[in-house]
Amino acid sequence: MTQTREEFEARLRQIGAERYHDKHPFHHLLHGGGCTPDQVRAWVINRYYYQHSIPMKDAAFMSRVESPDLRRAWRSRIEDHDGTDTNPGGIKRWLKLAEAVGLDPDYVASTEGVMPATKFAVDAYVRFVRDKTLLEAVAASLTELFAPKIHADRIQGLLKNYDFADDSSLSYFQNRLKEAPKDVAFGLKWVLDHADTQEKQDMAANALIFKTDVLWSQLDALHSAYVEPGRIPPGAWQPGQGMANAKAA
Amino acid sequence: MTQTREEFEARLRQIGAERYHDKHPFHHLLHGGGCTPDQVRAWVINRYYYQHSIPMKDAAFMSRVESPDLRRAWRSRIEDHDGTDTNPGGIKRWLKLAEAVGLDPDYVASTEGVMPATKFAVDAYVRFVRDKTLLEAVAASLTELFAPKIHADRIQGLLKNYDFADDSSLSYFQNRLKEAPKDVAFGLKWVLDHADTQEKQDMAANALIFKTDVLWSQLDALHSAYVEPGRIPPGAWQPGQGMANAKAA
Repeated sequence: MTQTREEFEARLRQIGAERYHDKHPFHHLLHGGGCTPDQVRAWVINRYYYQHSIPMKDAAFMSRVESPDLRRAWRSRIEDHDGTDTNPGGIKRWLKLAEAVGLDPDYVASTEGVMPATKFAVDAYVRFVRDKTLLEAVAASLTELFAPKIHADRIQGLLKNYDFADDSSLSYFQNRLKEAPKDVAFGLKWVLDHADTQEKQDMAANALIFKTDVLWSQLDALHSAYVEPGRIPPGAWQPGQGMANAKAA
Repeated sequence: MTQTREEFEARLRQIGAERYHDKHPFHHLLHGGGCTPDQVRAWVINRYYYQHSIPMKDAAFMSRVESPDLRRAWRSRIEDHDGTDTNPGGIKRWLKLAEAVGLDPDYVASTEGVMPATKFAVDAYVRFVRDKTLLEAVAASLTELFAPKIHADRIQGLLKNYDFADDSSLSYFQNRLKEAPKDVAFGLKWVLDHADTQEKQDMAANALIFKTDVLWSQLDALHSAYVEPGRIPPGAWQPGQGMANAKAA
């Protein structure tokens, strides 16, 4: 049976409550100060791949949108990440974080040390947005509903527990606190407006679940490679590689 | 054998000299004042479909670009068409032209009256950019090399021959005269830089030929439906439909 707008929104929020990656043990370790410097670096390197792919995902969405107005509303997401004349953008801010933890930003930007499992998950998201309905693509973006809390927790936890953390190195998260709410307000309204049958509500809910899987599996791969059991896959970043000082030497 | 940079650029320009749609009889008719008002309207309606698809094509390109810098350089094309806070954008300017020739802009924007042949050709271009190499995608955009001349001819021909033509209705073409040169300078340099083997030069040249086919076949369809023999395909715009005054009545 088709849910009311309120019931359906509650269902989407419940997906976050149960499955969003703020529940993953890696984040508890990271925010609580339990990560070694190398574990932080592994997170920064792998998460960069997600950052650098998000504008590709948003462009894939726009490539399927016939309405100039909807494309225009969506375009600010690409600007937020890739930057504008007045805003360096999220990807450059992420590379500031990379520098702050001692990594060579060019190494991080090369995506050379990223684990295959990270790429598979992130690439699956870009493909999902390219291939599925627009409703599913927008619904998948709604993990942003749950992001402000994790960003706030992260800023607080990193500042408290790690020397590298300051306003400059954490500027990515500070900016997302400002940017994400406008995106998600637009996306949530769009999904609630368009998911007007039970079938579409199920599709949208499943798309959001898919996206939580994309995020969760990235942390699973990270945890398994760099925390426990600590089996780094062939070709992935090894501690010591890609350090800023190695480049200077 | 791999051509020198100069030889290869000359080869690309020769493709325009032989195949660009400024050679099509429909444009001679249009620019020379030989089109009836309804033939102008059919052109405006069908060409709108191309206009409204170009940002989708550019987003499809960006969805495959891993470099934030290249994405950022490319993004201005979408802004030029979809508009920004300070620029209404090419699509809205095209709808001004639609109004000036007596059409209801909402009808034109609905793309309802567009011929299937127009859609097939334009959709093939979007798909080409989504599926082929980045080199082929950029090379296909190089018809912009030949556009300033057709825009200048068009402005002059329309102003001289048609009452609807003035600065406002022709603002689309005036703006493209400013925007296209920067895009094509970037695109041409990129193609010359990247087509560094004979195989890649052949790919790029064939991509540009493909694009001239996309443009030419749109005019063939238009000519055959609305000029000679004048067989309008089922479902396509019929003179009298979608007029601005019909809406007011």
